[in-house]
Amino acid sequence: MFTNRRRIRIEWGDCDPAGIVYYPRYFALFDAATDALFEAAGFKMRELIRTYRIVGIPVVDVRAQFYIPSAFGDDVDVETSITKWGRSSFEVCHRLLRNSALAVEGFEKRVWVVRPPDNPDALKSAAIPANVIERFACGGINAVQ
Amino acid sequence: MFTNRRRIRIEWGDCDPAGIVYYPRYFALFDAATDALFEAAGFKMRELIRTYRIVGIPVVDVRAQFYIPSAFGDDVDVETSITKWGRSSFEVCHRLLRNSALAVEGFEKRVWVVRPPDNPDALKSAAIPANVIERFACGGINAVQ
Amino acid sequence: MFTNRRRIRIEWGDCDPAGIVYYPRYFALFDAATDALFEAAGFKMRELIRTYRIVGIPVVDVRAQFYIPSAFGDDVDVETSITKWGRSSFEVCHRLLRNSALAVEGFEKRVWVVRPPDNPDALKSAAIPANVIERFACGGINAVQ
Amino acid sequence: MFTNRRRIRIEWGDCDPAGIVYYPRYFALFDAATDALFEAAGFKMRELIRTYRIVGIPVVDVRAQFYIPSAFGDDVDVETSITKWGRSSFEVCHRLLRNSALAVEGFEKRVWVVRPPDNPDALKSAAIPANVIERFACGGINAVQ
Repeated sequence: MFTNRRRIRIEWGDCDPAGIVYYPRYFALFDAATDALFEAAGFKMRELIRTYRIVGIPVVDVRAQFYIPSAFGDDVDVETSITKWGRSSFEVCHRLLRNSALAVEGFEKRVWVVRPPDNPDALKSAAIPANVIERFACGGINAVQ
Repeated sequence: MFTNRRRIRIEWGDCDPAGIVYYPRYFALFDAATDALFEAAGFKMRELIRTYRIVGIPVVDVRAQFYIPSAFGDDVDVETSITKWGRSSFEVCHRLLRNSALAVEGFEKRVWVVRPPDNPDALKSAAIPANVIERFACGGINAVQ
Repeated sequence: MFTNRRRIRIEWGDCDPAGIVYYPRYFALFDAATDALFEAAGFKMRELIRTYRIVGIPVVDVRAQFYIPSAFGDDVDVETSITKWGRSSFEVCHRLLRNSALAVEGFEKRVWVVRPPDNPDALKSAAIPANVIERFACGGINAVQ
Repeated sequence: MFTNRRRIRIEWGDCDPAGIVYYPRYFALFDAATDALFEAAGFKMRELIRTYRIVGIPVVDVRAQFYIPSAFGDDVDVETSITKWGRSSFEVCHRLLRNSALAVEGFEKRVWVVRPPDNPDALKSAAIPANVIERFACGGINAVQ
C-alpha cells in the first residue's frame, strides 16, 4: 500500500480559544494530504482535473477520531494511503501522529466526479481510470518533510 | 428531544473551485450549530465556560455523510439535537436540509472537559452537571431564522 | 449612499488562542458583507455572475484597522456601502460595530472581472454596467438582523 | 534587515469558486509567516508567550495589495521582515512571489499585548523587550523550503 507522509506545522490560526486545534481544521489538513498523496503518485490535482475532465474528488462520507489534542507550534506527521478502490469511489485513511503517537485518525470516502457533457450543471460519478489506480499499487512510504 | 433549527447562508468563501461547499466548512457550521443549541437551551457558551469552569466541549469523534452538494448563495437549514448523554460525554446530531431535502448528516461525540486544578496544563473529562442535561429534556423545535 | 447592515455572531471557530477573533476571519465577514450588500441592492452574487458573465469581483487592495477586539459569543453589526465607483473597479467600506462602538474598519477595492472569450484561462477587468451602479444610488440603510 | 523566506503550497481549500485564492486566506498565510519569522529569529511563538507573559502579538492595522492571482497547486514564496520597531508595536512586511514575480504585498502593524495583573480580562500594550528586537538586527535571508 502506497503511503505518503508529510510533516505539518500546527499554526496559531488553526487553534481555538481552548488553545488546541479547532477540529474542522483537521479536515483541511486531511484534504490537503489527499491531494499530496495523489501528487506523490504522479497526479497533481490540477492535471488530474484537466486530463480526466473531472470536477474533483468530493468527499461523500468522512469520519475522524481525536485521541490527543495538538496546539500551535506542534509539528505533526500525517500519513495517508488509499485503502480501498471501488468502481467510482475510493477510501482514504489518514493517521496524524505527534511525537510518534497516534493523535487523530481520519477516513474519507471520495468519488470520481464529472460534469456530464449533456448537463454541465450537474455532478455525476464516473469510473476511475485503471491507470490512476495502478499508480497506487506499489508499496512503500513516500516521506516529505 | 429538544431540537434547534437555524437557517444558514452558504457564502462564497465556504466554497471551493468546484463551486460547492469545501467539506471542512460543514464542520464549522456544525460546531456553531452545537453552540447555538446550547444557547437555545439557556447556556451561552461563554457563560457555560465561566460557570462550570470547563475549557470547552471538544469533539472526540465526528462523522458526516454528504448526499446533496450546496453552492454559494444557497440557504440551508441545520437541525441540531443531542441524542445521547453519557457521564462526561454526549452525542450531537446535525441534519442539514436544502429545500427540505436532507443534504448532509453530521454526528459529533463531545466531552465535558476541565483543566484539573492540580495540573492546569492538562485537559481532563468531568461529569456533566445534571441541571445542564435537564434543560435539553423538553421536546419541541426551537426555530431561529 | 446605500448601506446594508447585518448582525453577525462571532463564533468559537472565529477565535484564536488569545480568545479574540483571528484577524483573517474579519475579512471573511467583510467578503460576505459585500455579497450581502449586492443582494440587498437586488443582485444575488450567483445571478450577477450568470447575467454579466463575470468570474467574480476579486479584491485588489484591502485594508483593515482594528480598534476593539471581539470574542466568541459577541454579536456585532457590519455596515457596508460602496463609496466610489470607477470604470471597472469600486471601493467598499465596512464598519464593524460592537455595542454601537466602532470596533473594526475595513476597506476593499474590487474589480469587475471577466474571462475574455478568446482566452478563457485569463482574468481581465471590464466596465461595470451602468444599471448595476444605478441600483446603489439611492440612500438609506437596509438593516437585516 | 532580517528576512525569512518560506515556500507555501496553495491548496484546493485556499481557493474559491473562481479557482483562485480566497483573499482572507492570504492573511492566514501572512499570520503564519510572521510566526515563522519570529521562530527563525529564535523565538517560537509558544515560548514567546510563556517567557514574556504576552497574550500574543495582535494586528491593529493590516493591508494587502493583490497583483497576480494564484491557484491551487501553485507554489509561492513568502518573504517576511520587520521594517519598523516602535515602543510597543512593530511593522511587518510580506512579499508573496510566484515564479519570482511579486504577486501580493502585505503589511501588518502588530502590538505587544499583555493581560495586566490587576485586570486579567483586559488587553494592554507593553514595551517590547530590547533583547527581542536585537535578534532581528542582523541582516541576511533565512530560507526554508
